[in-house]
Amino acid sequence: MKKIGIIGATGYTGEELLRVLARHQQVELAFATSEQEQGQSLAKAFPNLPKYHEQVFCSAQESLARETDLVFLCTPAGQSAKWAEAFLRNGAKVVDLGADFRFQDPQVYERWYGMPHSHPQLLQGSVYGLPEWNRAAIQASKVVGNPGCYPTSALLGILPLVRAGLVAENGIVIDAKSGVSGAGKSPSRSTHYVEVNESLSAYKPGRQHRHVGEIEQELAKQAGRPMQVIFTPHLAPMSRGLYSTIYLRLNKVIAESELLTFLADAYEREPFVHVLADELPTTKMAAHSNYCFLTVRTVPDSGVAIVFSAIDNLGKGASWQAVQNMNLMLGFPEEMGLI
Amino acid sequence: MKKIGIIGATGYTGEELLRVLARHQQVELAFATSEQEQGQSLAKAFPNLPKYHEQVFCSAQESLARETDLVFLCTPAGQSAKWAEAFLRNGAKVVDLGADFRFQDPQVYERWYGMPHSHPQLLQGSVYGLPEWNRAAIQASKVVGNPGCYPTSALLGILPLVRAGLVAENGIVIDAKSGVSGAGKSPSRSTHYVEVNESLSAYKPGRQHRHVGEIEQELAKQAGRPMQVIFTPHLAPMSRGLYSTIYLRLNKVIAESELLTFLADAYEREPFVHVLADELPTTKMAAHSNYCFLTVRTVPDSGVAIVFSAIDNLGKGASWQAVQNMNLMLGFPEEMGLI
Amino acid sequence: MKKIGIIGATGYTGEELLRVLARHQQVELAFATSEQEQGQSLAKAFPNLPKYHEQVFCSAQESLARETDLVFLCTPAGQSAKWAEAFLRNGAKVVDLGADFRFQDPQVYERWYGMPHSHPQLLQGSVYGLPEWNRAAIQASKVVGNPGCYPTSALLGILPLVRAGLVAENGIVIDAKSGVSGAGKSPSRSTHYVEVNESLSAYKPGRQHRHVGEIEQELAKQAGRPMQVIFTPHLAPMSRGLYSTIYLRLNKVIAESELLTFLADAYEREPFVHVLADELPTTKMAAHSNYCFLTVRTVPDSGVAIVFSAIDNLGKGASWQAVQNMNLMLGFPEEMGLI
Amino acid sequence: MKKIGIIGATGYTGEELLRVLARHQQVELAFATSEQEQGQSLAKAFPNLPKYHEQVFCSAQESLARETDLVFLCTPAGQSAKWAEAFLRNGAKVVDLGADFRFQDPQVYERWYGMPHSHPQLLQGSVYGLPEWNRAAIQASKVVGNPGCYPTSALLGILPLVRAGLVAENGIVIDAKSGVSGAGKSPSRSTHYVEVNESLSAYKPGRQHRHVGEIEQELAKQAGRPMQVIFTPHLAPMSRGLYSTIYLRLNKVIAESELLTFLADAYEREPFVHVLADELPTTKMAAHSNYCFLTVRTVPDSGVAIVFSAIDNLGKGASWQAVQNMNLMLGFPEEMGLI
Repeated sequence: MKKIGIIGATGYTGEELLRVLARHQQVELAFATSEQEQGQSLAKAFPNLPKYHEQVFCSAQESLARETDLVFLCTPAGQSAKWAEAFLRNGAKVVDLGADFRFQDPQVYERWYGMPHSHPQLLQGSVYGLPEWNRAAIQASKVVGNPGCYPTSALLGILPLVRAGLVAENGIVIDAKSGVSGAGKSPSRSTHYVEVNESLSAYKPGRQHRHVGEIEQELAKQAGRPMQVIFTPHLAPMSRGLYSTIYLRLNKVIAESELLTFLADAYEREPFVHVLADELPTTKMAAHSNYCFLTVRTVPDSGVAIVFSAIDNLGKGASWQAVQNMNLMLGFPEEMGLI
Repeated sequence: MKKIGIIGATGYTGEELLRVLARHQQVELAFATSEQEQGQSLAKAFPNLPKYHEQVFCSAQESLARETDLVFLCTPAGQSAKWAEAFLRNGAKVVDLGADFRFQDPQVYERWYGMPHSHPQLLQGSVYGLPEWNRAAIQASKVVGNPGCYPTSALLGILPLVRAGLVAENGIVIDAKSGVSGAGKSPSRSTHYVEVNESLSAYKPGRQHRHVGEIEQELAKQAGRPMQVIFTPHLAPMSRGLYSTIYLRLNKVIAESELLTFLADAYEREPFVHVLADELPTTKMAAHSNYCFLTVRTVPDSGVAIVFSAIDNLGKGASWQAVQNMNLMLGFPEEMGLI
Repeated sequence: MKKIGIIGATGYTGEELLRVLARHQQVELAFATSEQEQGQSLAKAFPNLPKYHEQVFCSAQESLARETDLVFLCTPAGQSAKWAEAFLRNGAKVVDLGADFRFQDPQVYERWYGMPHSHPQLLQGSVYGLPEWNRAAIQASKVVGNPGCYPTSALLGILPLVRAGLVAENGIVIDAKSGVSGAGKSPSRSTHYVEVNESLSAYKPGRQHRHVGEIEQELAKQAGRPMQVIFTPHLAPMSRGLYSTIYLRLNKVIAESELLTFLADAYEREPFVHVLADELPTTKMAAHSNYCFLTVRTVPDSGVAIVFSAIDNLGKGASWQAVQNMNLMLGFPEEMGLI
Repeated sequence: MKKIGIIGATGYTGEELLRVLARHQQVELAFATSEQEQGQSLAKAFPNLPKYHEQVFCSAQESLARETDLVFLCTPAGQSAKWAEAFLRNGAKVVDLGADFRFQDPQVYERWYGMPHSHPQLLQGSVYGLPEWNRAAIQASKVVGNPGCYPTSALLGILPLVRAGLVAENGIVIDAKSGVSGAGKSPSRSTHYVEVNESLSAYKPGRQHRHVGEIEQELAKQAGRPMQVIFTPHLAPMSRGLYSTIYLRLNKVIAESELLTFLADAYEREPFVHVLADELPTTKMAAHSNYCFLTVRTVPDSGVAIVFSAIDNLGKGASWQAVQNMNLMLGFPEEMGLI
């Protein structure tokens, strides 16, 4: 049994981690931290997770004294790197669900997050935790930056076609729709039921959202050259689910069936990415799971292909993918606890 | 054209008032107050109400200087009485959507609201604004306490049977279900989309909710004796709508058809209360309207009848009923702007 | 008082027409037809529309005998033209909420609807009922084809920029999201609550949806040349609302503020189209109204502008716009009954 | 590994069984039947359940030839008994999620289901599958009638107090609210998204719903005398979740804390029933789980206690409880696959 800790366990990604780990047979919870609820029982916060009812929230500072094999950081950008550094010194491995280890280049991080990276020396050894594209590096790494929800959904759909050299420069438009849990647990006008229900709207369109940086970094790796995307996230009236509709200008004429084959081949042996042939994905397919559902369609006489990608933003888009990374880092079967 | 003011215009009841009044042909908006947004255009807060786009929020204090025929108070218990006093001195009439004028007896108010009434001398002249049961008094009054959403729904269903002397002592159980707008516009955990969506729960069961006092006061008036109710409100995952399922122990054997006749007769000439014969009401029937839909069923061999009552909590349960009261107080046709 | 009829009054567009017309002071309902419910009272189908409770559904065939000034057709493609022909012969005017009068060229109709137009001779005199762009023709016409919901939303956003010659050839991608009422009232798997709730998905992507033809026809009129669009509709878990996120490749460098001015100028005197400057629209803004909310943003260094357009699919996207057309055709003030 | 079959695998209870069984380590799917989809791959119906993607739906008739240890029947009343008889002859055990084995007395069955029981001789050996109250009998049985969703929720809350002799005759009112999946997967007006969304309504109030019979049978067993309940189910706008608010007239004065102790003691060692002390349950607590959350409150000076009970109607209310029964019948740890 490996000992697992969670820093920031009361938000939606922390709660979802607890839910998934409760079913995992090779790990046990060493600690769950909450600054606001320290000293209180997990029973109150999570009546539906009786496995943890004997445990008590501690502060992040206290948790450093606990023996741990791997720690999940559910902390905002700027805070994760500090905790990562401390736990690494303790000999633990780290999966950061925040943004501090998603970039290799501290200057790119600074550009998108508006502050210098606090521990740039850690970035060298860190890995972008998209297992389908970085499996070996994740297995060997001590620090993994778990991808953002939008980048996970978009990259899984685009990367096979970019790697194959099929996508024109400046030819990527990602129109994405997310459930409200992606906005976090803090009450605000934009998460108020009455404001969100029966409403749908875009926010931070074009190149404003921080996830643009992450998407472009990973695309560039496969393309071998810089790539720019246009990305518009939307908030949809649902708790979970993330849908990306991706318009790709192709740089050559290619049949829909061939594009489908590129996708299918890329994920042929992947347990968590399913390429659909005859139907389009829905977010409901992926709810409460680590699955990503993909397909692609061409638009006649236009040179454009449309990729459709559906995940659960708290599943493959956050906590379930984090456990997939944990499985790789600790030598467990990749699917353990995730089926 | 009469001049109308709204104190506290940015909450849900204030916004709904603005929406309804925009269609009313005999009134114009003298002012809308907001302490937080004073000086700002109504255009920003209400892009969908262009009729008011030239107007600007003022503070409640400033509004006292404006000439007004009638003022709606969308203010919490304890604040309304103060503003009512000031506007009455100015010669305006007042409809309070808060609780300060729902009780005749200041001690009953204090019992349910946990503070002494600030202007008990005003209570004598005030009227409980349920037009179907207090029409003449409302027409003659300068201060009307607009009923709470739960009491409106429950009382319209129970009063005809209580007046007829059919309901046993201690024989009333009201199980009510409300949409989330009833909880107000302030963001909180209990209005967070992800917490509320796909969830339903009771709160303040038994005799804890403040609306119990209001319901019992009005029942006693018709019964000619004190009456106690058991009342359990629930929060349902919808923006609007309020449903009361009311279990009544009858004190004599009476056929369902007779009970239906009591209801139908009570509201025969009422434009806003519809008694259904063959089907049960739904909250959707009443959405965005001033209607209340009622029916009653008996339970064989039990001595119990069940009354079903559906309204829109922001409609007949708040702002639309407030406009109905305004129509009565200002001498307009009662249905003006409400059909 | 003008006499109005509705063919097919029990679907969502028919019901919404009844709701809007109930508030209109210059019209009265001559008939409402339903083949399935003929002979039954409207009271049962529409408990919340007491104004019509004395009326009874008749068959469409019977309705031909009633005197009428204007008839709304809520009938599927292929049926509307037949009824239009009959009512025109009777001297009535016609607004078709179906597709039979949205195309000038019967061959284009046939291409998108898979059948020859039954009454091509009527197309000459018919007008595409987008009042902001066809007002004079609508006023003079006896037959108006009410635009589809997606085309209304997209065209209002794109037309000002296309007219100004700013949009590159093959440079239009429309990513649209609709509420479920757009799928009609017939129960099916894709309208089942449990299948739709917490789910979002695309359908008929690229150039498959019939509304593509309508959009391209109207764009070509303003552009003076054929234009092709890529269009992907999505189903979102909400009852009403339609959001279009429109990616436009520009054919010259132009500042965001200038684009905003193009939009603002185009709709400066329009009562129902509001151009937002500082915020993006939401579908909630437009709910239960005839408004369209628009804005535009540029994407730095990309040559792309993004237009955002929000309507209520049953409002400006169907029945409310149909009443706007009726107002124009019958000589009423354009906003009557719609504010 | 035990071999499991599912008759009627494409409805909501069948799908949920497949989802739960996919995580169970001691069983494998022998067959899943669907008359409409026989011959088709499960991959198409359940893209999110890759474990079964190699399997193909067969007809119920064909499934009789497969070797099976236990069969789940997701079939309507009147059909289950026939299949049960056939599988029992084959040596398999049976858990019926329909109603054919919920009654011991065929005449009671006939009264509530309007038809004679097709195999009354099987009822003797069958057991009502509420494990917390019938564990030993379930373990020894070959045929278990899985309780209805409403009865599960109500009985778990009421039985401890009835057993203790605390509840007055004719003193039980159950006001229950269910998510839409309880209405099944067949599209109809009452499951149409637009009809259900933003709506809440009662149906079959009093003593009309078939679940009344089941509830009264089990209450009588613990009370040692016949008991009558009043039961009003409601449809709430959510996919899953079932909430019962139960008003109990007590036949003696008893403190709230004592009532809580009765509940807590009754379920002290139960893994799936949690008695809350300080807060009321919500349906969200129980979502996607086999948990039932309970608590009780007294109403001062009324002689009434209110029990609150929340489950997932597809969880403890159907498929998860069916797997709990399977675990007992096949000798597995009761919680296997359910945590």
